[in-house]
Amino acid sequence: MKVGFLGFGEVASTLSGWLKDAGVEVYTSLEGRSDKTRARAKNYGVKVCKDNKSLAKISDILISAVTPAEAVKIAKDVGKYTRGIYVDVNNISPQTAKEALDCIENGKTADAAIIGGIKKGGIKVLILVSGSHAEQFSRLNQYGLNIKVIAPEVGKAKTLKMLRSSYTKGVSALLLETLYLANEMGLDDEFLRCLEATECPGFRESTLSRIKNSAYHAQRKSQEMEEVLKFIEDYSKLELTDEDECLSMIKATGEFFKYISNKIELDERPNYKELFESFKSKN
Amino acid sequence: MKVGFLGFGEVASTLSGWLKDAGVEVYTSLEGRSDKTRARAKNYGVKVCKDNKSLAKISDILISAVTPAEAVKIAKDVGKYTRGIYVDVNNISPQTAKEALDCIENGKTADAAIIGGIKKGGIKVLILVSGSHAEQFSRLNQYGLNIKVIAPEVGKAKTLKMLRSSYTKGVSALLLETLYLANEMGLDDEFLRCLEATECPGFRESTLSRIKNSAYHAQRKSQEMEEVLKFIEDYSKLELTDEDECLSMIKATGEFFKYISNKIELDERPNYKELFESFKSKN
Repeated sequence: MKVGFLGFGEVASTLSGWLKDAGVEVYTSLEGRSDKTRARAKNYGVKVCKDNKSLAKISDILISAVTPAEAVKIAKDVGKYTRGIYVDVNNISPQTAKEALDCIENGKTADAAIIGGIKKGGIKVLILVSGSHAEQFSRLNQYGLNIKVIAPEVGKAKTLKMLRSSYTKGVSALLLETLYLANEMGLDDEFLRCLEATECPGFRESTLSRIKNSAYHAQRKSQEMEEVLKFIEDYSKLELTDEDECLSMIKATGEFFKYISNKIELDERPNYKELFESFKSKN
Repeated sequence: MKVGFLGFGEVASTLSGWLKDAGVEVYTSLEGRSDKTRARAKNYGVKVCKDNKSLAKISDILISAVTPAEAVKIAKDVGKYTRGIYVDVNNISPQTAKEALDCIENGKTADAAIIGGIKKGGIKVLILVSGSHAEQFSRLNQYGLNIKVIAPEVGKAKTLKMLRSSYTKGVSALLLETLYLANEMGLDDEFLRCLEATECPGFRESTLSRIKNSAYHAQRKSQEMEEVLKFIEDYSKLELTDEDECLSMIKATGEFFKYISNKIELDERPNYKELFESFKSKN
């Protein structure tokens, strides 16, 4: 079994490490990649093809794990050379995934979504997959992965990831708003303790980490929420009767991340007290 | 130690059962109470005073656990007769609690808030308390209760309960909105499973129970959210500069519960699929 990776960032390198340990032949290509990526590929000891075209020809399963902006372009580049199954694991919308997979001329495709952080989740991190060749991709489960086939229709895995993202980002926004008020009232510590009493074990720790994460990645999260909203609005225009009223939370989440992304400079990593100060000091 | 209860509904009867088992003398009065409440008092074996006035005179700690609408009236009724400490545990706003406690002429008062369901929480359910006589009320901890003093300023316990309520109701609203979309797309089951993979243990079960509860009590929750919003808006007008933008989630939660409370008849207890059908069929 030969598995090729287009891109060799965190997702590709982590997956390739697990597969290599389980005896899979793992390949990548460094065509157009950064020095950092080259060093990482060397470090992981994967086999390196001279370009994406040769990688596409050699791989039984070719996994695209690049940046969202590159997903369609790289599919176009290898579309006519892909021999095996092409799987897109990028963080993109269902529509964009369809656009990318339509470039693969052999039609053996699947769209996948990694649920939660890959490092945090470890080898049993949930990987959802849909599309005509979802079942074939899930054969990697024999090497220890936790791939779950959702449906043969392309886009369902990305759709689930977007719905989940609306929920988890909404929870972060709610936490920030209510903690902001509690902090203003001098009750932040008591507020967290009081939620901890009835919410899940480890609530406080996971909350503080969620908040930090939301603030640090506010720009990216704001862009992701825009893509989620676009997808949901397109869908609701076609399918729902009452879209304005039953999507108020999701829309508010979008507004909230837009608001905080304007308050925070890129690469700031404020704790919640610093973040709340910035609510007051900037416009 | 003599503890008296004004009102003998779920909260009063449950607390009185625990205190009685721990050796406290527990009293109530059935003045103006329903037949159901009379039967419950008999069943719990508490001592019954002839009226609220005598109850107020005899009690070391007098606990008001009536309906939100009765909280101020009953405080007025017993205001000049209260000998011991008067504690309001009703589900009311900080302002309303102040109004009630101001009626107690001896000034020995506290406002308390029960965090989460009292039956579900059991004797260790968290009870927050604030006000001048919060410490004295917390002496009931020697009988097994879990009372936590927040601050000597009246209203802080009710404030925390309102902030928590914004958060938990917001989470329910988010769940309903995202699950609604997933259900429309035929992905509801997969969506719940995918959240379960990264959220807390028992997520699915607690989610379905939260949803049922939100739907069943939609009218009450909508009213509670209106009170929360009124409190937060009053506060933010006085204290915050940017109130419109950093309260978008809380406002959306209010709108959401208003929306579903108009969709559901009182005493309906729909599961989520039935609830979502009603989104489409009524106006």
